[in-house]
Amino acid sequence: MTTVGILGGGQLARMLALDGAPLGVRFLVMDASADACAGQFAPMVVGDYTNESALAEFASRVDVATFDFENVPSESAQWLTERIAVYPNPRALGTTQDRLAEKTLFRELGIPVPPFATIDTRAQLDTAIADIGAPCILKTRRLGYDGKGQFRIKSAADADAAWGALGAQAEKVGLILEGFVAFERELSVVAVRGRDGEFRTWPLTENWHVDGVLSASLAPATAEPALAETAFGYARQLAEALDYVGVFALELFCRDGELLANELAPRVHNSGHWTIEGAETSQFQNHLRAVLGLPLGATRMVGHACMLNWIGAMPDANAVLAEPGGHWHDYGKAPRDGRKVGHATLRAESPEELAAGLQRVGAALDREAQVAPVISRLHGRRPL
Amino acid sequence: MTTVGILGGGQLARMLALDGAPLGVRFLVMDASADACAGQFAPMVVGDYTNESALAEFASRVDVATFDFENVPSESAQWLTERIAVYPNPRALGTTQDRLAEKTLFRELGIPVPPFATIDTRAQLDTAIADIGAPCILKTRRLGYDGKGQFRIKSAADADAAWGALGAQAEKVGLILEGFVAFERELSVVAVRGRDGEFRTWPLTENWHVDGVLSASLAPATAEPALAETAFGYARQLAEALDYVGVFALELFCRDGELLANELAPRVHNSGHWTIEGAETSQFQNHLRAVLGLPLGATRMVGHACMLNWIGAMPDANAVLAEPGGHWHDYGKAPRDGRKVGHATLRAESPEELAAGLQRVGAALDREAQVAPVISRLHGRRPL
Repeated sequence: MTTVGILGGGQLARMLALDGAPLGVRFLVMDASADACAGQFAPMVVGDYTNESALAEFASRVDVATFDFENVPSESAQWLTERIAVYPNPRALGTTQDRLAEKTLFRELGIPVPPFATIDTRAQLDTAIADIGAPCILKTRRLGYDGKGQFRIKSAADADAAWGALGAQAEKVGLILEGFVAFERELSVVAVRGRDGEFRTWPLTENWHVDGVLSASLAPATAEPALAETAFGYARQLAEALDYVGVFALELFCRDGELLANELAPRVHNSGHWTIEGAETSQFQNHLRAVLGLPLGATRMVGHACMLNWIGAMPDANAVLAEPGGHWHDYGKAPRDGRKVGHATLRAESPEELAAGLQRVGAALDREAQVAPVISRLHGRRPL
Repeated sequence: MTTVGILGGGQLARMLALDGAPLGVRFLVMDASADACAGQFAPMVVGDYTNESALAEFASRVDVATFDFENVPSESAQWLTERIAVYPNPRALGTTQDRLAEKTLFRELGIPVPPFATIDTRAQLDTAIADIGAPCILKTRRLGYDGKGQFRIKSAADADAAWGALGAQAEKVGLILEGFVAFERELSVVAVRGRDGEFRTWPLTENWHVDGVLSASLAPATAEPALAETAFGYARQLAEALDYVGVFALELFCRDGELLANELAPRVHNSGHWTIEGAETSQFQNHLRAVLGLPLGATRMVGHACMLNWIGAMPDANAVLAEPGGHWHDYGKAPRDGRKVGHATLRAESPEELAAGLQRVGAALDREAQVAPVISRLHGRRPL
């Protein structure tokens, strides 16, 4: 029987195991923490990704490896690649781990990106702010996620504060200054590419973030077909350029009907969680099908879906469970400030039914602010 | 965190754990075999159901218990009930373990059943064959499933052979003679009842058996609404009479537009596997919601679905995986003659799409005979 190894044992690994089990494979999860939530449903190797003996044990027990976590050191990924099949490949992982390499690739492929500049010194920061213009955002090139490792610069006067906050990272992980995009919408393409190059995308998803963390996703997004095709085309170009195998998400900003690429997440993605109930095949199962070299499943919608993220602690389940299309996902994690501990997906046969369900859930859980932008979009449904 | 204990570690326990995980609960499976397939995704207590120390360990580690196997000795179920919450209750389990008690209950509730008689002696067998008429079927009262422990009597001349095959069981588990029903269709109601008495049914399912083992299920069955309502009414009467909590299946024969009850399976059921993809909430998740006292999920169809059982060994997955609505379920079991090792579900937006998919899968896997009756029904779609 084939064993799939997953580096990282969080909720993504957990959902990969739960949704991949019907393929008849087994899983082995590697995580530095023995109580990683994927360990509730899959055996684990407990160890740090840089621990060669733990990695060797992991490699000896699996047939193919993948990631639930994009910041696995590329040296570890490379070490594994020399021993077992690893998807996506370490080059794809390395490129997307580095905001500069990633944005350079976008630009090379002709995919529009906000202006950006690499920052090694305090002096370069001033020059770049002058070139790019404020507002802009100083970010670490590596190891940032969910809004961490970022500093918003409202005017050139903030340069000192920004350097104070992140300057020490310049030598360690590098810094990049990005122009701030006054976008109207955030969209994502969740896509999958097979070992044989077959490429599929799920319908375009609209996302809402709060404090840099995903709060809600709506699929399908209300977009003109031509805009969606452009987004899918960017995703395909990137997948082919990186010889990518598996699921990834391309995050995009939409401004004045134009798309700008923000980043590529080289793994199953929070904005694709709705695919478990809202699509014929989920992102989790298709990632595994890709990694295992199996035919990809259909990515068509089954109704309309909205995912709501639960951050910090789980709310009361009953309001969601009582909804006709309510689906609950408790990751089995201890509550902690800012931690993604679960999500809910509402699935409905029509946008109206979905809006009504969101209204009831928002009211019952006292989370009107979380559902309001989605309901407003569903009521409007004006295509981009 | 709540832990749900499951007695029996086969594919039903496995699918309960996989589909129940998102509720944020943990599972503990008890099975006599250390390589029971549910153990690939849930921790296990290895031990026989009659082993009191193993049962005690199981009871000490779970908050609530349920079954993947209806033949758990009722004494073991009773022993557990005195210590922890157990659903369904041991009386429901005991009644459905005994064909005579079960059929007597059907009759008491006014639910039509084929003629039957209890058989303790060889002489009673002759009398009963004369009363009920041939053809008829001699069955063990207990411990029979999937056509095991049965002998078909074509005429009175077969009485000796029948007694030779099963007579020795008369003292051990009891025997029952049942009139043979020349049915036109086999149907099942998969239903769920909550701790609070809330009752829901999935759409009526039509089933095809080969050699006494389920081969294919189609949902929704093509039935007149009145017929479906009658079937749902029987299921509700039984659930209320037994104070049943959880999912069960009521198997029915349909002859000349009339329904006859065959048996009640006190657990999630093979004829409900299609609910994983074909219904808003699967039988597995709703069983757990019921057992945990949570709101029940919607049982509405999401499209049209057909389940195909894989017996003995798994066929090639690719033909199913390549279908737009193809879903694969490999239970992770070693192949063995007559063993249920997996199933596939095809989900489609229309009966025509479903029929076309079944045609392709049947041809690709050289299993035309398995899909033919379903395709024929889909093409006819004449309501019962």
